[in-house]
Amino acid sequence: MATLPVCNVQPPARLLFGPGPSPVHPRVYAAMAQSIVGHLDPYFFEVNEQIRRALQRCWGTGNELTLVLSGTGSAGMEAAVANFVEPGAKFAVFVNGYFGERLSEMGRRHGAKLVRFEKPWGEVFSDQEVMESIHRERPDVVAFVNAETSTGAYQDGAAIASAAREVGALSIADCVTSLGGMPIGLDAMGVDVAYSGTQKALGCPPGLAPITCSPRAVEWLRARKSTPVTWYLDLKLLLDYYEKAHRYHHTAPISMFYALRESLAIIEEEGLENRFERHRVNHEAFAAGVEKLGMPLLVAPGIRLWTLNTPQVPAGVDELKVRQSLMRNHGIEIAGGLGPLAGKVFRIGTMGYGSTAENVKLLLGALEEALKEKGLAG
Amino acid sequence: MATLPVCNVQPPARLLFGPGPSPVHPRVYAAMAQSIVGHLDPYFFEVNEQIRRALQRCWGTGNELTLVLSGTGSAGMEAAVANFVEPGAKFAVFVNGYFGERLSEMGRRHGAKLVRFEKPWGEVFSDQEVMESIHRERPDVVAFVNAETSTGAYQDGAAIASAAREVGALSIADCVTSLGGMPIGLDAMGVDVAYSGTQKALGCPPGLAPITCSPRAVEWLRARKSTPVTWYLDLKLLLDYYEKAHRYHHTAPISMFYALRESLAIIEEEGLENRFERHRVNHEAFAAGVEKLGMPLLVAPGIRLWTLNTPQVPAGVDELKVRQSLMRNHGIEIAGGLGPLAGKVFRIGTMGYGSTAENVKLLLGALEEALKEKGLAG
Repeated sequence: MATLPVCNVQPPARLLFGPGPSPVHPRVYAAMAQSIVGHLDPYFFEVNEQIRRALQRCWGTGNELTLVLSGTGSAGMEAAVANFVEPGAKFAVFVNGYFGERLSEMGRRHGAKLVRFEKPWGEVFSDQEVMESIHRERPDVVAFVNAETSTGAYQDGAAIASAAREVGALSIADCVTSLGGMPIGLDAMGVDVAYSGTQKALGCPPGLAPITCSPRAVEWLRARKSTPVTWYLDLKLLLDYYEKAHRYHHTAPISMFYALRESLAIIEEEGLENRFERHRVNHEAFAAGVEKLGMPLLVAPGIRLWTLNTPQVPAGVDELKVRQSLMRNHGIEIAGGLGPLAGKVFRIGTMGYGSTAENVKLLLGALEEALKEKGLAG
Repeated sequence: MATLPVCNVQPPARLLFGPGPSPVHPRVYAAMAQSIVGHLDPYFFEVNEQIRRALQRCWGTGNELTLVLSGTGSAGMEAAVANFVEPGAKFAVFVNGYFGERLSEMGRRHGAKLVRFEKPWGEVFSDQEVMESIHRERPDVVAFVNAETSTGAYQDGAAIASAAREVGALSIADCVTSLGGMPIGLDAMGVDVAYSGTQKALGCPPGLAPITCSPRAVEWLRARKSTPVTWYLDLKLLLDYYEKAHRYHHTAPISMFYALRESLAIIEEEGLENRFERHRVNHEAFAAGVEKLGMPLLVAPGIRLWTLNTPQVPAGVDELKVRQSLMRNHGIEIAGGLGPLAGKVFRIGTMGYGSTAENVKLLLGALEEALKEKGLAG
């Protein structure tokens, strides 16, 4: 046990059941409060190495280029686009939610020739659809969202990665809300580049973006002629810092590395299979519970995330008032829908340290109470 | 007092007297270990508002656009270039050290027409030199390094900002190693855009990049026609998140905001003038001490940073061996020179929580001991 002095930061108690950040284990906070070392200290690189190996296991990959970027999940997305989508490249994005839209926007900003394959929010693309789309357009790079945080839908990537390979394209997967909470099997899927964030199923505060690249992607990167516009997220420069000469690039956020290293240690102690199973069981209990409350999930069974649930708002209920009631009466944070799903769904996380049977019961009880409260009709 | 559980992260004890990260006050660690709230929670925006106001005072600015970016100091540099240097713009950089070089490199990557004004590392530009250079080249944007962390030299920005204004250019200042440790007086200087990092004289772990923009810069930004390539560091999008609609952009690293808020509270308790004076006094004592040891500072009196000192390595001494000896015998981290100063100077920080009379004594004693050690000759 360690003791800490009193400080000015005295946050209110919150139960974080939104789409992230998720609740954090006290050991992770303890790790974050450890004294920092320098960004070129051997201990820092030792911590970094432990992180890299543990992330490989979470992703199910042997990719040597597996590291963390000094920014949040969106920095991971930007790094994937900036490093692998050259100006003028044909960049195909599967868009079935908010984060597919964001990928498109980043591609546009990087000067790509953008091709969008679209589906209504909450649905996913079939193998046949992705094969046909990719073979028709023959893009240079393909991106999709493995776990769409705006809808709760899981997009398998095997057919996308396979079709991409057939036309000589690289594939990119957004795993922000799947990593650490669901089996991804990245190498089996055949995806070239994937990124994530720390504040979802990994159970760590926000601040870092894990990224991993296949040997094929690394080969492509080494052969790339043009220089990425970004210096901060340039993977070639980061490789020189993290994996080789330890050449100074930027001052990595040491404390966040401590936190991630501890949250990954907790994951390994639980065991990945146990952890995934825990997420599945609690998600299914929650899904059954909200269905009983008259709020079936938006997403069809079989393609649901185990980490993030999107119960539909019942007719006549003002979703904002429900959220305010949960916060007021219980300190519970959940989120509403984005874009076309605004007002139509709740977004409720059952992930990381927060995915427990007790929390599912607590959430269902609080939701039931809120729905009965007077004055919540829209 | 709060207690924390045992964790796997057990870093070795280090005395951080390099060019950053600097030692961190226990209260800052305590703040970082507080429970996170969501990135759209009113408490987070309250913390953010306290940070913004305190940063304005450190910088000596009334700039409303003062915020922190979710990346380290280098992300601050990249944001300044990405937002204010359009492709094709004439971008003039005053280069007298490593970070001037980095500014040039970022300008190049952003497609600027680059103009470099150069000086040997360790020197600074005179008022006459900057006036002549800027009036001759008439650039669109001018950048300089207020506190050159690679050399220990302080470049005043008043003449640069004034000449820039005369030719209609924006001015950008790198204040990574000055903010919180020396008076900057940004508004008096007339600089348009300045950025910094948290891990130097602010006394906080690395992880955030404060940035501030003058009303003139904001006006320019609002009128900018092209979209910055970066989405992650796009200031217009960040304004919508932090200062206005609180529209979701990315998931800010909450714990780092807690840490920065606490380190700024500590600064305000000490009082800015007292803090600056403490840095000046300890720097001068250290400078006098190393001079006695036969290691006069590289930088001339009057243009020395109070935060970072560059004593010259005596002839016949292997600087790497001295650094290794300090680490081995005392757990003291200092740094060597970069680029043309490699092997020629040490870089020793006296900043933030680490700038004390006791530390100066400790450092001088350890240096003296190391210089006497056998086998340190080069």
